[in-house]
Amino acid sequence: MSDEYYMRKALRLARRGLGKTSPNPMVGALIVRNDEIIGQGYHRRYGEGHAEINAIRDTGGDISGATLYVTLEPCCHYGKTPPCVDALLKGSIGRVVIGMVDPNPSVNGKSIEILSRRGIETTTGVLEEECYRLNESYLKYIQTGLPFVTLKFAQTLDGRIASAEGNSQWISSESSRRLAHRLRSVYDGILVGVGTVLADDPQLTVRLVKRINPLRIVADSRLRIPLSARVLRDQDGAPTIIATTSRADKVKLSALKGMAIEVLTVGEDEKGQVDLKDLLKSLGEKGIASVLVEGGARIITSLLHQGLADKAVIFIAPKIMGRGIEAVADLGIRDMSHTIKLSFVKAYRRGEDLVLEANIRDAP
Amino acid sequence: MSDEYYMRKALRLARRGLGKTSPNPMVGALIVRNDEIIGQGYHRRYGEGHAEINAIRDTGGDISGATLYVTLEPCCHYGKTPPCVDALLKGSIGRVVIGMVDPNPSVNGKSIEILSRRGIETTTGVLEEECYRLNESYLKYIQTGLPFVTLKFAQTLDGRIASAEGNSQWISSESSRRLAHRLRSVYDGILVGVGTVLADDPQLTVRLVKRINPLRIVADSRLRIPLSARVLRDQDGAPTIIATTSRADKVKLSALKGMAIEVLTVGEDEKGQVDLKDLLKSLGEKGIASVLVEGGARIITSLLHQGLADKAVIFIAPKIMGRGIEAVADLGIRDMSHTIKLSFVKAYRRGEDLVLEANIRDAP
Repeated sequence: MSDEYYMRKALRLARRGLGKTSPNPMVGALIVRNDEIIGQGYHRRYGEGHAEINAIRDTGGDISGATLYVTLEPCCHYGKTPPCVDALLKGSIGRVVIGMVDPNPSVNGKSIEILSRRGIETTTGVLEEECYRLNESYLKYIQTGLPFVTLKFAQTLDGRIASAEGNSQWISSESSRRLAHRLRSVYDGILVGVGTVLADDPQLTVRLVKRINPLRIVADSRLRIPLSARVLRDQDGAPTIIATTSRADKVKLSALKGMAIEVLTVGEDEKGQVDLKDLLKSLGEKGIASVLVEGGARIITSLLHQGLADKAVIFIAPKIMGRGIEAVADLGIRDMSHTIKLSFVKAYRRGEDLVLEANIRDAP
Repeated sequence: MSDEYYMRKALRLARRGLGKTSPNPMVGALIVRNDEIIGQGYHRRYGEGHAEINAIRDTGGDISGATLYVTLEPCCHYGKTPPCVDALLKGSIGRVVIGMVDPNPSVNGKSIEILSRRGIETTTGVLEEECYRLNESYLKYIQTGLPFVTLKFAQTLDGRIASAEGNSQWISSESSRRLAHRLRSVYDGILVGVGTVLADDPQLTVRLVKRINPLRIVADSRLRIPLSARVLRDQDGAPTIIATTSRADKVKLSALKGMAIEVLTVGEDEKGQVDLKDLLKSLGEKGIASVLVEGGARIITSLLHQGLADKAVIFIAPKIMGRGIEAVADLGIRDMSHTIKLSFVKAYRRGEDLVLEANIRDAP
């Protein structure tokens, strides 16, 4: 069987860690001898054993002369666990096939170099694009310190996310909304503007599917959030951070602190709103590697305008609304040639809706 | 082989007539004896032989005891050609398998009845949905006298069809525009509002692919069209009709008539614009069974508002524009539950774009 064949299997293993490994990457590994899989493993959860070690364990321990297939370059440093490269050398692995180099500064090709210097054949870049896409959050985060930002919204065919009066319940079908909950569960945080809290009073938890709740983040420069907002309840199940500015209402501030809600004071932008870059940086420092942005239009527009969004997941309902509210407001773009460019990654049906996933290629 | 197997082949034959049979339907026919195809035919062009007759001819003439597969109920009346049912009876066909009943009032089940009465086994409704979709234009036209109306536009991911200044060149990629030209060629007419002529000065001909030009129709209540407009040129290759109202500029009217441009005066709606239902009725009377509407927003909105649109073909470019012009303006819809409902028929990539085809299920 080809290297691609085994790497595809390793990718499938890696995906089992979806939503559980952050801020670590998802990794899958396979050990093969004489065209027979003798061990397999994946990174199950942040802080637990790496995929390679789990695969070695799965063989019973004898990996001598065998080939390791791993979606991401093995580590060579002490983190929460000892370096994987040591275990491979100790076990006299015969060959190592790697999906992609780990851009983490403490790895970044070093492990490949160590293995090569020790006379072990290595092949890198097998199904590289798939391996890259698997860990888009981790890769952005490890290289920039900022979380990977995905914009998510549901719109009608004619581009409306709500009626002119602000009503958006429900544009998309129930099966789309279930998928949207599943999407929540694979992000470290969900971000909305306070306008969305005031209009819809969402819970922002994962209810329609059984998964882990992400951190809930509300950008609220003046602390206009009502203390009765649903996003402030059930802090044990899903903690909430309110991001505000120095202009915050002081009474509300103490009330929130009294409710044991974390309030994060960040800089403000030229409009007096929460400086989103500053907020993302703070979230990155807290280990939040990925954020799903669920609106409203102001926060979506601002993230796009500042080049802070990486991806868009758009649910398109087979409906036409006419006048209403659009997801993206004025970006200052006056010319077709200056639009923000994306590329479609996936398009699929979900119930009666269509779901489009697109990567944002460049900022305006 | 199953009935579905042969009917699928008949459907494929039928599609060869695409863009050439209107206002007749596309029809494909297959004659099978002992699981061997002994003849095949399709309706090649309006006024020429029917699919069944072409298939009989293809057998050499002996169809006795054989099975005919035909996508649409054969005719039993004298039109441009003698009734197909007579030829089938004369040739002692053994069995007739029909995709769908022809709703044309002069057929509408009568042929099936005649065949049954003469002791010939008939089966109806094989791949009925596909047969229906094949001739959606014909079916609407034969039942209502109005042409089948498809709205076509290109928009950014955030639903903008042009910049705030009205610039729309180009939202979609070249391969999408080539597909849009192919789409033109399968409609009997292309309809735009005069606003689109004033903004873009389009030719509305089929240039990017080699096909037949449809009739060009401009809705222009006051005759604001410049005499130099490109849509007025090359009348031999693609004739143009200007639809106007009694409020038309008289000088422009005589000038257009002097240029041998057909000017059609129809009623006006409550806004003093061309009454689109009236226009469609007049076009239907001229034998125009299908119209592709290429904008702008006013005409699209008006057709949707009046429940006159049957289908939408939307090119979605992987771009975000922010503020701009949307395809659909105010429809008077204030509530999510009152949106116009569609159903997606197809979604596919074309170059870097996505193309969505949706049927409009009900008016507001």
